[in-house]
Order: sequence, then structure tokens, then C-alpha cells
Amino acid sequence: MEFMDKNFLLDTECAEVLYHKYAEHMPIIDYHCHIPVSEIADDVRFCNISDLWLGADHYKWRIMRACGVPEELITGSADPEKKFEAFAASLSKAIGNPLYHWSHLELQRYFGIQEPLTPDNALSIYDRCNEMLRDPGMSARNLVRRSNVRILCTTDDPCDDLRYHKQLADDPSFPVQVLPAFRPDNFLDIEKPDFAEHVERLGEICDWTMYSLSDLKDSLTERINYFAFRGAKTADHGLPYVMYEPCDDETAGGIFRKRMDGGTVTRKEAMAYRTNLLLHLAREYHRVGFVMQLHYGVKRDNNSLMFDRIGPNTGFDCIDNHTPVASLTEFLNDLAKTEQLPKTILYSLNPIDNAAIDSVIGCFQDESCAGKIQHGSAWWFNDNKTGMLDQLTSLSNLGVIGQFIGMLTDSRSFLSYTRHEYFRRILCRFFGRLVSEGEYPKDMSFLGSVVEDICYNNCLRYFDFKPAK
Amino acid sequence: MEFMDKNFLLDTECAEVLYHKYAEHMPIIDYHCHIPVSEIADDVRFCNISDLWLGADHYKWRIMRACGVPEELITGSADPEKKFEAFAASLSKAIGNPLYHWSHLELQRYFGIQEPLTPDNALSIYDRCNEMLRDPGMSARNLVRRSNVRILCTTDDPCDDLRYHKQLADDPSFPVQVLPAFRPDNFLDIEKPDFAEHVERLGEICDWTMYSLSDLKDSLTERINYFAFRGAKTADHGLPYVMYEPCDDETAGGIFRKRMDGGTVTRKEAMAYRTNLLLHLAREYHRVGFVMQLHYGVKRDNNSLMFDRIGPNTGFDCIDNHTPVASLTEFLNDLAKTEQLPKTILYSLNPIDNAAIDSVIGCFQDESCAGKIQHGSAWWFNDNKTGMLDQLTSLSNLGVIGQFIGMLTDSRSFLSYTRHEYFRRILCRFFGRLVSEGEYPKDMSFLGSVVEDICYNNCLRYFDFKPAK
Amino acid sequence: MEFMDKNFLLDTECAEVLYHKYAEHMPIIDYHCHIPVSEIADDVRFCNISDLWLGADHYKWRIMRACGVPEELITGSADPEKKFEAFAASLSKAIGNPLYHWSHLELQRYFGIQEPLTPDNALSIYDRCNEMLRDPGMSARNLVRRSNVRILCTTDDPCDDLRYHKQLADDPSFPVQVLPAFRPDNFLDIEKPDFAEHVERLGEICDWTMYSLSDLKDSLTERINYFAFRGAKTADHGLPYVMYEPCDDETAGGIFRKRMDGGTVTRKEAMAYRTNLLLHLAREYHRVGFVMQLHYGVKRDNNSLMFDRIGPNTGFDCIDNHTPVASLTEFLNDLAKTEQLPKTILYSLNPIDNAAIDSVIGCFQDESCAGKIQHGSAWWFNDNKTGMLDQLTSLSNLGVIGQFIGMLTDSRSFLSYTRHEYFRRILCRFFGRLVSEGEYPKDMSFLGSVVEDICYNNCLRYFDFKPAK
Repeated sequence: MEFMDKNFLLDTECAEVLYHKYAEHMPIIDYHCHIPVSEIADDVRFCNISDLWLGADHYKWRIMRACGVPEELITGSADPEKKFEAFAASLSKAIGNPLYHWSHLELQRYFGIQEPLTPDNALSIYDRCNEMLRDPGMSARNLVRRSNVRILCTTDDPCDDLRYHKQLADDPSFPVQVLPAFRPDNFLDIEKPDFAEHVERLGEICDWTMYSLSDLKDSLTERINYFAFRGAKTADHGLPYVMYEPCDDETAGGIFRKRMDGGTVTRKEAMAYRTNLLLHLAREYHRVGFVMQLHYGVKRDNNSLMFDRIGPNTGFDCIDNHTPVASLTEFLNDLAKTEQLPKTILYSLNPIDNAAIDSVIGCFQDESCAGKIQHGSAWWFNDNKTGMLDQLTSLSNLGVIGQFIGMLTDSRSFLSYTRHEYFRRILCRFFGRLVSEGEYPKDMSFLGSVVEDICYNNCLRYFDFKPAK
Repeated sequence: MEFMDKNFLLDTECAEVLYHKYAEHMPIIDYHCHIPVSEIADDVRFCNISDLWLGADHYKWRIMRACGVPEELITGSADPEKKFEAFAASLSKAIGNPLYHWSHLELQRYFGIQEPLTPDNALSIYDRCNEMLRDPGMSARNLVRRSNVRILCTTDDPCDDLRYHKQLADDPSFPVQVLPAFRPDNFLDIEKPDFAEHVERLGEICDWTMYSLSDLKDSLTERINYFAFRGAKTADHGLPYVMYEPCDDETAGGIFRKRMDGGTVTRKEAMAYRTNLLLHLAREYHRVGFVMQLHYGVKRDNNSLMFDRIGPNTGFDCIDNHTPVASLTEFLNDLAKTEQLPKTILYSLNPIDNAAIDSVIGCFQDESCAGKIQHGSAWWFNDNKTGMLDQLTSLSNLGVIGQFIGMLTDSRSFLSYTRHEYFRRILCRFFGRLVSEGEYPKDMSFLGSVVEDICYNNCLRYFDFKPAK
Repeated sequence: MEFMDKNFLLDTECAEVLYHKYAEHMPIIDYHCHIPVSEIADDVRFCNISDLWLGADHYKWRIMRACGVPEELITGSADPEKKFEAFAASLSKAIGNPLYHWSHLELQRYFGIQEPLTPDNALSIYDRCNEMLRDPGMSARNLVRRSNVRILCTTDDPCDDLRYHKQLADDPSFPVQVLPAFRPDNFLDIEKPDFAEHVERLGEICDWTMYSLSDLKDSLTERINYFAFRGAKTADHGLPYVMYEPCDDETAGGIFRKRMDGGTVTRKEAMAYRTNLLLHLAREYHRVGFVMQLHYGVKRDNNSLMFDRIGPNTGFDCIDNHTPVASLTEFLNDLAKTEQLPKTILYSLNPIDNAAIDSVIGCFQDESCAGKIQHGSAWWFNDNKTGMLDQLTSLSNLGVIGQFIGMLTDSRSFLSYTRHEYFRRILCRFFGRLVSEGEYPKDMSFLGSVVEDICYNNCLRYFDFKPAK
């Protein structure tokens, strides 16, 4: 096959048909991303491909660091052109890395550049991209629109007033739904230095004095209601692992009080508090119909020197391997036993958890919703070809892939919608192989409908989104 | 390749030859299944494909639950025809799931139905199957016989009187050996509510008062001897993980006594008791020549609401990830150091344990038996194409696959012998690929003999079965 | 493809070109092996293929044990011819095992024997090999020389006087650099019976009384300096896992003193001591520019009966699954935060750690050296085709494969350089597939240069080796 041509990753005739006839044209629902909503509201423009590509992308920074590029050229104040050159040289050695494919998909789809980026043509491509970025068609809103995005969920702190979401909802000129998602990590991470500060701030917003954990819970419930009112359909949690340290309200309240009074909590206390509060939140999600996303298996901020220099989310996180199944199932069971388990998506960053997760979700499905408990798409360090194929294979082996809700970008960039294309190609490849191996009948119209479901329809139904006509 | 035709899964010429010339015609030894022996003794008949397929198969129930099918149509009292329709609709979306292949193998081999089951033809297939089930050739015994089963081991509680095994052994009209297997989980699971009850019942059967752990051990030894007398060749254990909490007889006896007197035991005490008793049993197995099967890496009964409604083994178990190598090796070493380690098969339900297991078994092989310590065939959530290939690959990488004893069904159904076919096709595919890649010489007669060994001969020798002529 | 012909493992045209045009002719740097340096210094000869193959190779012993071969024919005093026959019979059943490929690569490359070894031709091959071994071209030095080895690092205890390394460095007739590597496990394994003995011996060598841990540290520093003076570029550590039990010097010194006075240390104390000393050593490695190799995920000496009979390193080790990411990252961070983290290579024996390791190394890269933190090549139980491909895939997915330093033998044999060939073929296969799938441009000269880098140039630069002209 030629390098990344129109049949990129489609290695059977069946895969080609499934992709080009069914997957390619489906709209995108990006139900989990980290785009700052203000950038959409303000319809920001980018004058420089270095800013756009290298301004906030820790994937790219890691590739550069692995090549020994000076930090000055990565997150420092070096000349954008030099940064781009350094990135191009690093990328060319990142053979097999998904960043290689994403970057070239972005060059192809948004800039019409078909040739591979190399150290030799880096400056030429740099100039051509910057030239094109002057076009109004490359503004934030236009990038989203031309990517065929129908619905997009940002990630928002409970304290957020969601003014930009309101502004966008009220603006008939932009047809894409931009919805908030509820992300209350700051209120669960009781061991973090700024915990009390977040609690106080929430108190101010809710006009409430935070005497007790019960006050915090009430305030969070108020915000959940407000998020729901603004169209939110989901909440997201980043956890080290899904813990289960059952703890009554009184004990949890004591831990909260101690922490608010300036005390330190033990690891066990933090887990007990987290269990108590997350169970409460999950029941609220069940009440309002939110999908609960649980992301875990991550160890963050591993390099304290760099953390002190450039802060969090700069490329110093890794996969963790403490992800006990025992507490995960007990946590879910605590909710299921009172029939208050919300729709839930489980994502471990550790790919070795795939089979375990797929076996766990099968224990908590029920008739309230097809595919009620989902194994989230291959994520972060796993959103590469093998990572996605492994997740699809495991899900197929142990569950019903036809109920899968598919891909999300998890990205801060307006060019990352090509990751949906990447995923769809891999999905079609996966089904194409099954057919070509005689493992599934060659019923193209049925398979096509399943592909369309996984690309779009399942997600729409699952989250209960209401797209504009 | 066409959908599931005669060369299903055989993707090289070498694989085709190995399967059709060598594997296909070998008899089956199903050394581990859960068929109720009474159903063979009574030569039961099935009047309805829904009863046969959906009556006791938690694999199928899980697929249906993942599609949001109401429980009434799964384990409830809904009309069998409606259940079958709901199953057909769910199955068609379970693309890539082994259940899809097993179900179609069963339709092809036992019912002569070649077309794929879809929602459209579900009722027609339902009727045709039910029609065929009226044929006496579809009775339990005839299904076993025509599947070319030579030997079959059921799974039996030590309290079982094995009357049906005796009855079948005395019945010259049924040529298949049906042997018991010793499964004493009830006597190791000291934390379970009905532990004392099982102990008392065993006491009655052995006509013995269970004052002490020593009494229990003597009783179990008596039953082992009885099982051996009735032809048993193996014992099977389901463990959360292979623990090693060494504990002298006096301490273990104290834990037993406390539990029998109505006390509760700690987790650590339960593990100590289990270690002590399993070491004792293992030495007994070594004495009588039983193969010890250790199944672990499972977390059972995760959904307490459903457990309360429909009990155990209904599809609410999952893969666990607490399977420490350290205690596994120490447990085996405790037996090996006195040369009392029986032939042992290790099965973890977690596929990430493959490499570790294959490295462990290499530490305890000895000259008493070729392949004395085995890595059991891919099991339960892993008995799919990738799961089997992963197990074969790991075993090949780290051990001697020519000594492998191959497949078991682990099933409650008389149609599951097609899983042996599934395994054999995958095995031949695996070898065929090695040859086509130049990784093994194309010595078909030698490879054919190895295939025959793995399908049948190794198992016969390993368990020391004595098939009738 | 034909069995192991010139295009063995090269399944695309691109792979063939990469291997034959670029990889095949690159010199070898074997930066980690276990060849006794005295055997090179003495230029030993082997009169018997059984001695050469079966004298010290626990991989082969395990294969034979798995086939039930009596220990007498494995490590015992049986006739070498009989041993060879038993090995040949076992090997033929080890379909898919890398030993099958290594053995045949050795027969092809060093003995010119192209036919597969079988029980039938075993004696004939035995005789032909022994005949050829009489040739002076088969001496230790000649085997190394004709394997195109440029640099070779042995593994040496800090107490070693390195006399043979000096002798070889002074001998102009042997052009291969033979450098020592610093392996101080004996001084970290405080729980082992012979710990104090090793400490005393080091004291004698350094002419120093070992009153305190500080004395030990000073002595080890002295030896590091001496090893560096003799050309060493690396230190190697075998750890159960990378622990992090932070502990001040006084506490660590107390644990050391207690142990030297004959006391026993707890597991926690041993880990604290190990953490303290390894942090010290790592800072020393950083000072002198050594590469720190950390090997872990191994559980050793699992069969105590066999250990008592034939000692360590005889084939009774296994993969462990206690390899916490949390302590690994904290250990590395302790060094990184003071900018004293040396160049480091991480190797876990457990292949399920691949993705986690590749995500960890990305957290500690810096501009002092391209690819400063490396994920070591697939090792021991993983140095097979799938193990190597998995490591390469994971590294490509999460890092920059162009910076990889490639293969080592980890072997005690002079014939094991064929493992570099094995690795290089697999590397070229891996790249060839990416190109044939359209995942990387078909830029053969760039890809060729990357292949040459991974085979040789990266390693040369990374370790700062200075090869003779």
C-alpha cells in the first residue's frame, strides 16, 4: 500500500467498502475533549502552525524529549520556526508512533499537504501551513464545522459558570452543540494542596457555607442540576484506580472536616472519603441520567523537577499498574444493588486491563439500556493502531461490539478530529479482517449499519443527545 | 475465505492438511466438563432448542444482557420462541465473539444448518432445530457418541456416591467412558456460609464424626480412594489465586474448629487453612496418581442483586488480576521439595498471566512424566481465537508445545464438543503459520503426529486413561 | 517461505532490503553478556558440541526437562552423545520455541549445517560438529572475531581485579574490545546468607575495614572508579522489582550494621537498605558517566530441591508479576530531581510491563542525551519473535524507536551472536510491515540509516564507547 493514501489502514476490500460507504460520512460526536470552550466562543484563529501543533500537545513534547531536544525548543521561548524544525526531525524517527499518523492526517485533511514531513521539507511545510492559517476557514469554529462535528462535550469544573456554553447555545450561527461535562476531580482529590481552596470557591458560587461534607454534597448536587440544565449529559472522573473503601457518612464527614481544618489525611482516609463521595455523585448521575466516565490507571506528575518548572499536563504522566479488579467490582456492585448504577464507561490507561474490564462490564449490564456499561475506547497512550485493535478485539471476544459507543478525541486541539478518522479506519479494518477470514458473514448492509452505529448512532442514543435538525 | 466453510480458520495449505488429515478424525477426551452425569445416564432428550441453548449457558445470557434484553427473556419464564428470537438478534451484533462461532458450528454439525442465524431467519431455524431434536439421534448419549468422544470426566463433589458413573460403567451399550473428577471446593472455602453443612454431610457419608481437621482430611482421603476406585484420574480446584500462607496442622486445625463452632475466620486464616488443606490433598493426589487442576484468576458473584435473584453461575463472574506468582511458586515448591508434587495443570482466567505461567511450569518439570506441569488450555473468557492463539504462542515460546495436553470443554452442554473442533482448527492454523513463515520445517508427518498427540495421545498418556478397545 | 533460508523472518521486500543492505553487515556491540572473560583470555577450545551447547545453557535444560528427560542426561554425567540425542529429540517438539531458531542459526552460521536437526540425524550432526570444532577457527576468540563483534561487555563483581580485561586490552592480536561491567548485586542483596562474606572480601581488596555503610559506599565508589579506569561504561543490577523505600543514611547504616553483626533484616529493612544504596550508586554512575541497567520482574531459584542439588542459574527461575510502577517512578524521580539520574535502561522480565515501561521512560528523558532512558530489548523469556515484536511495537507506539539502542545477548555462549541476527531480522520485518501497510513512507535510505543506528550507531554513542580504528 502507498503511504497513507485513501485506503490507509484498510487492508481488505470489505474494509474499504465499510469505510468509504458507511463510516467516512457519519457525523462526529466528540463526547470527551479538553478544548477550552472560550476558544470556540471567541472563534480563535491561529497564525502559526507551531503554536497550533506545539503549543499544548504533550504527546509531541514527549517525542521531542526522547530525541534529546532542548526544553527551550519544546516548551520554552525559542523561535517557532526552530521548534517546528526540531519537531519535524524528531517525528521522522518516531516510526510507528500514532503521532506520525495523526500529524500527517492533519496535514492532509486541513492543509492539503500530501507529502511526508521530513527535516528537509520542514521549513517549506511550515511556511505553507502558516499561509493557509490566514484563511478564515481555519478559525476554531470553521475547523469544528468542516470536521462534521455535530456535538462536542468540553470538560468543566463544577465551579464553572458555563457562560460560554450558554453563549454558544444562544448563537444560531454555529450549528454545533457544545455541551459541558461535569468534572469534579478537585472535590475528590482531598490529599491535594488546593483542595480546601476549591471547596471554598464552590461555597461562594453556591452562596453556601461549607461546614460539612453534607454541604459539599448539596453544593455539588446543585451544580449537577445546573450542568444538566445547560445540556450536560456526562460526568468524568480521573482516579488513580477505582477504589472501594466503604465508609459511612459520619466517618467521611470527619475526614472532610479534618482536612478543611488544615489537617492531613492518610492514604486510607483519602480513599474512604473518595469512595463515599463518588458513590454519592454516582447516585446523583443516575438520578439525572448522566453517563459516568471513570478514567484510571494513570500515575501523574512523575518528574517533580519538571513539575516545578512547567506544571501539570506537560508530558510527565505514565501508565500505572495498580488497578485492582476487586475494588472496581465492589464499587459498581454497591451502586447496582440499589439499582442506582448510572450508565458507566470504564477506561484504564493500562492495556493489560482490557480483558478484565470486558469481563467486568458483562457483570453489570441490565435492561435499562443496551450496552449500559461500556469499555471506553483505547485512550491516551493506547490510541494507536495496536492499542485500538486490542481494545476492539477484547471487546468483541468478551462482549457485544455492536453496542460500542466508539471514539472520543480527549484532545485540546481543533485538528484532532482526524483521530475519529483514524479510529474509523481501524474499526473497518477490524471488521474487514473478520469477514475475509470467514469469521463473520459478508453481509455488507448489516455490517455497514453496525459501523454507522459505532461511529455515531450508539453514542447519540447512549448519552441521550438531542441533535438539532 | 467463505463464512465458516470446511477450511474455517485454516489460512495456509499446511493448516488444511494438518486439520483434515490429522486433527479432524482424532477421538475426543473431554477431561473437564460440567455435564450432569445423570443426564447421560438417563439419556435425556431435548424438545426445544431454546432449552438446549439458553437453559444453562451464561455465555449466551451475558451477550443478551449486553444488548439490554429484559431478564425475563433470558433466565425468566418468557416463551422459548421469544427467547430464541432475542438471542438471535443479540448474537448478530456479537461480531467476533466466539459464541458466534460456537453457535454456528453447532448448527452446522448437529443440525445441518449452514446459513448464518439472523433475526430474519430466527423463527425458521428455531422450528427446524426443534423438528430435528425429535430424532432419537439427538439424545444425550447419541450426541456424545457421534461427537467421537472416547472419555469424558464430569465434575463431582466428594460427597457424591457416583452411582451414575457406576451405572454407566456397567452398561455395555454405551461405549464412552464417563469418569468422575474430584472437586472438593466446598471443603476449602471455609469462609462460605454453608461450609459446616458440607463438612457435616461428608461426615455422615463417611460415617465419621468431624471433630477435627484431621477427621476431615481422613474423610477426604477416603473419598479420593473411592473416586479412584470408580476410575477418577483427576481433581479440580477453583481458587481465587494460588495462595501460600504456610501454617502447621495445629493452627489449621484451630481455624477449622473455630469455624465449625460458628466463629468467623479472617481472610488470612482462610488462606492459611486453604494452604494447609490443599497441600494435604495435593500429596494425596500424588499418592494415587491424580492430575491436580488449579483454576484461578476469577472473581465470582460480583452482582449481589442478581445473585440474590438467580444464584451463582448465571453470568456475573469476571477475570481477577490478583494472581501473585510468588505464592504460586512457593506453593508448588512446598510439594516439589519432598517429591510429592502431583501432575498439575495451571489455568489462570487472566490472559496476562500466560507468560508468567509458562515460565513457572518450566521450574517444576521432572523426569517422572513428560510435560508433568501443564499450562491449561485457554479457558472461559479466553476460549476464543485470540485467547487460544495467545496461549499456544506463549507456551511455544517458553515451553515444549509438543507435550501439550490440549483442549477441554468446561461446558454443561452436549453440543459443546464443537469447541474441540474450534481448538483443533486454531492449533493447525498456528502450526501452519509457523511452517509458512519458515519457522519450522515442512515435515508434515512429524507435525501431523504432534497434532494428533495434542488432540488425543498426550492427554491419554498424561492422565493415564485406559480406553476400552 | 522455505525453512530458515536467507530471508528468514523477512516477509516483505522492504524487510529484505533493510536486512541485506543495511543490518546484516553492521558490527556487533554486545553490551551485556555473561561470557567468562577468562575463556576469551585463554582462547578456549571446545571439543564437543554437547559441552558447547549443553554445558551451561539453562534454556536447553528447561526444554529437556519439559520432555521428561532424566536429569542425568541434562546436567548429569551421562555420555555427551546421549545428551545430544536427548536434546535433539526434545528440540524437535519445541515447535515455535526461539531455541529452535537459535540452534539452527548456530548450526547454519558456525557449522555450515543447513538441514534441520532431528532425532534421525542427531548422531550424524553430532559427529560433524565435533569434527569442525577441532578447527582452530572455532576457538573462543575466533568465534567472537568472525561474528563481527567490535565491543563486548562482560559482567563482573566489584571484587574482580579485572586482570583478564587488562590482559586483553594489552594484547594487540585480538582486536575486539572486552570491557568489564559493574555488577554489585552481592552488596545490595542484604538478605542473602553470604552478604557479610562479600562485604568482608571487598574490604580486604580495598584494604579497608568495613565498620559502616559509609565504608561500603566508599569502597564501591573506589571500585567504580577502577572499573571506569579499565574501560567500563555500564553497571547492571538484578532486582526483584524497582523498589522505593526512602530511608536516611543513618537508618540504612543501622540496618547494615545489624546485618553485619549477624542479625536478620526484615523485608522492609532490606528494601530500605537497597533503596538507599542504589540511590548512592546511581549518583556515582551519573558522576562517572556509566549507563545504569536495571533488570527486574524475575523470581529466582523457585525449586529448592533442585537448587540444593545443582545450585543457581540452572533453569528454575521465572517471571514475576510484582513490578509496581509507583515505586519505579519514585525511584527515578529521586535521582532526576537533583539532576543526577544516569542514563538508564529498564528491563522487566514480564512482558505485560511493556506499555507501562514505555510510558515511564518518556517521563525522564532530557536534553543531556538522546534516548537517555531506554526500554531494554526483549529479554530472557521474551527474546523470541513475538516478545521482540511486542517490545518494538510498544516502544514505537509510545516512544521514538529511532533512538533505540537495540540488542544484547545476555548469554554465556560464544555462539549466541546469532541472536543479534535474529533480532535484526525481526527489526527489519517490523519496519518492512509498517512500510508495506502504508504506515511509513518507503524512504529506504532513511529507514536504512535508522536500522544501522539501532544495530550499532546508537549503542556506540549512548554508552560512549571508543572503538579502535
